[in-house]
Amino acid sequence: MTTPAPAPFTADDYRARMDRAARAAADAGLAGVLVAPGPDLVWLTGYRVPADTERLTLLVLAPGQDPVLVVPKLEAPDAERATGAPALTLRDWTDGVDPYAVTAPLLAADGRFGVSDNAWALHLLGLQRQLPGSSYTALTDALPMLRAVKDAAELERLAAAGAAADAAYEEIRKVPFAGRKETDVAGDLADLLRRFGHEQVDFTVVGSGPNGASPHHEAGDRVIERGDMVVLDFGGLRHGYGSDTSRTVHVGEPSAEEQRVHDVVREAQDAACRAVRPGIACQEVDRVARAVITDAGYGEHFIHRTGHGIGVTTHEPPYMIEGEEQPLVPGMCFSVEPGIYLPGRFGVRIEDIVTVTETGGRRFNTTARELAIVD
Amino acid sequence: MTTPAPAPFTADDYRARMDRAARAAADAGLAGVLVAPGPDLVWLTGYRVPADTERLTLLVLAPGQDPVLVVPKLEAPDAERATGAPALTLRDWTDGVDPYAVTAPLLAADGRFGVSDNAWALHLLGLQRQLPGSSYTALTDALPMLRAVKDAAELERLAAAGAAADAAYEEIRKVPFAGRKETDVAGDLADLLRRFGHEQVDFTVVGSGPNGASPHHEAGDRVIERGDMVVLDFGGLRHGYGSDTSRTVHVGEPSAEEQRVHDVVREAQDAACRAVRPGIACQEVDRVARAVITDAGYGEHFIHRTGHGIGVTTHEPPYMIEGEEQPLVPGMCFSVEPGIYLPGRFGVRIEDIVTVTETGGRRFNTTARELAIVD
Repeated sequence: MTTPAPAPFTADDYRARMDRAARAAADAGLAGVLVAPGPDLVWLTGYRVPADTERLTLLVLAPGQDPVLVVPKLEAPDAERATGAPALTLRDWTDGVDPYAVTAPLLAADGRFGVSDNAWALHLLGLQRQLPGSSYTALTDALPMLRAVKDAAELERLAAAGAAADAAYEEIRKVPFAGRKETDVAGDLADLLRRFGHEQVDFTVVGSGPNGASPHHEAGDRVIERGDMVVLDFGGLRHGYGSDTSRTVHVGEPSAEEQRVHDVVREAQDAACRAVRPGIACQEVDRVARAVITDAGYGEHFIHRTGHGIGVTTHEPPYMIEGEEQPLVPGMCFSVEPGIYLPGRFGVRIEDIVTVTETGGRRFNTTARELAIVD
Repeated sequence: MTTPAPAPFTADDYRARMDRAARAAADAGLAGVLVAPGPDLVWLTGYRVPADTERLTLLVLAPGQDPVLVVPKLEAPDAERATGAPALTLRDWTDGVDPYAVTAPLLAADGRFGVSDNAWALHLLGLQRQLPGSSYTALTDALPMLRAVKDAAELERLAAAGAAADAAYEEIRKVPFAGRKETDVAGDLADLLRRFGHEQVDFTVVGSGPNGASPHHEAGDRVIERGDMVVLDFGGLRHGYGSDTSRTVHVGEPSAEEQRVHDVVREAQDAACRAVRPGIACQEVDRVARAVITDAGYGEHFIHRTGHGIGVTTHEPPYMIEGEEQPLVPGMCFSVEPGIYLPGRFGVRIEDIVTVTETGGRRFNTTARELAIVD
């Protein structure tokens, strides 16, 4: 992919995101937002910690206060180099000091705070101990849609990541499957994602034959055989934004049953993608896909939700799942990936990333969805 | 490293560890231990989750109860393949169900539980919501030494990891430094660790010149120059157990000051290693190293603790830090890694992994600690 790199984000971009998060916190009745290392912190500040350890790094965003990043002293130079650092005050702490005592004065003692889902329990317990009158809610529960609506610069990156994943799929169809291990094909997929511009490969699922019936099987030592269905599901980050696509291929000609199962999944996936438009609930996307599969008699074999959001991670809100009543909003991006899994036999999954536009859904993955025959 | 692979752990090994953890919990007055994906779960069950996500996976160990692993249904096949699975009951849950409601009946409603340090805040908050009468403490606070004392099979693995890291150091001294980027040398180090048997590389710090003054600088675009001090700190996992060693090298001849600073760190590191013996407090190891550096006039430039434990991770209790009164016990393994960091100029760090024996400390890293001259 020789597309030019997108313009980098600036400190002002990060300042605007932090302002938006603080305002959203206030609107939700929160005294602030506490952001641990991980995708929330990357999105808000551009800062990727050298390693996520037991040493507390925590961004404190409170309405009407300047953002403060609590950081271990020995990682302060790393934090200072983050693009968003000019929009932050750094508060460092040294080994031997209680970092929760350093953080507590930044927080309202009886406040309710949204905290990153993936913050360590160790750190949450430390804050609860320091401020027994405070209370906490997971950021995904409190502000689930904080990162969900992407702006134009983010959509540009997600489209580029999807195009690169599609290019990888076009190439992987040409490699030999029969007689090679799943891990060999997975290695090819990882190489292709990197060749087409991914700086990070998150997963390269190759589920052949019965392994395809375990939706989150990665890739193993099984040697792929002639006659196998093979689920391919791969993605990672390009320019900091995610790709995630699945296609199911067949080694040689499929049986009538294999073709039928694939047809059902393809119809379900297509119907769900066509259902995407502003204002419908996330769960509606799931229901549309599930109805097709259930009507075909395979309902009990569709054992996961239909999709998940994508952005600076390959797995985030919004979730396309029964019970999620969040309406779709233009700029949201998520996977649509129904599947059928026949235990001990084979699986089929087809997945595209879809973004919501004013008029409907637009797919970032556009490779053929018919059952491809590979060698 | 052509040493034979160690005998694999068995389900009985994992059963014994889980029994030991449940007993330790009872002794500490806990109603149980809740173990999230990560090193605790690997150590207790051999299970590495496909990915640590917002979907709850949690091992519940309670005195007098059989161990139960709560697991997302679509990951159950992965969990069933873990070596420790025969010693476990799996309780799976499906997307759309509240996993905390599934977990709650396994827990005493008013119990106090130790929870993995790195469990997601999302999950801890879910349990706190389901069981408002329950309370929690971080596993490192409640049972800090749970994994700290290694048995013979673990020591064998740590020694093998150390030998491989030492072999990598011997080779990296031969590569060109001047005129290459830090990231190039870091890449060489990663290749060497893998060549000598590491299945996972966790870090390859190459801190040249002023970058060496940031203790947790990884490796950057800086081109290494003649006259640079270069801190090398690298490690990862071999046969599932960690290596972690640092040496500081110099490109060409050092100045008198550079040599002096290196001599001070070497003396501090050696004194701390020689102080290791059963019964002394962890903080004593830190004090010994710090006294040498402080006496030499560099106390304010030794800005981190002296060491950390190592096992199935490269970073765990016990910590060699002021205030840690835990006595050393034979079988404990940890780093001894004092350093001096002169901001904007250079840094020096020397690090070995040391295990406590009945008679003193034994180092798993034995390469020369003198300031090596590289090209």
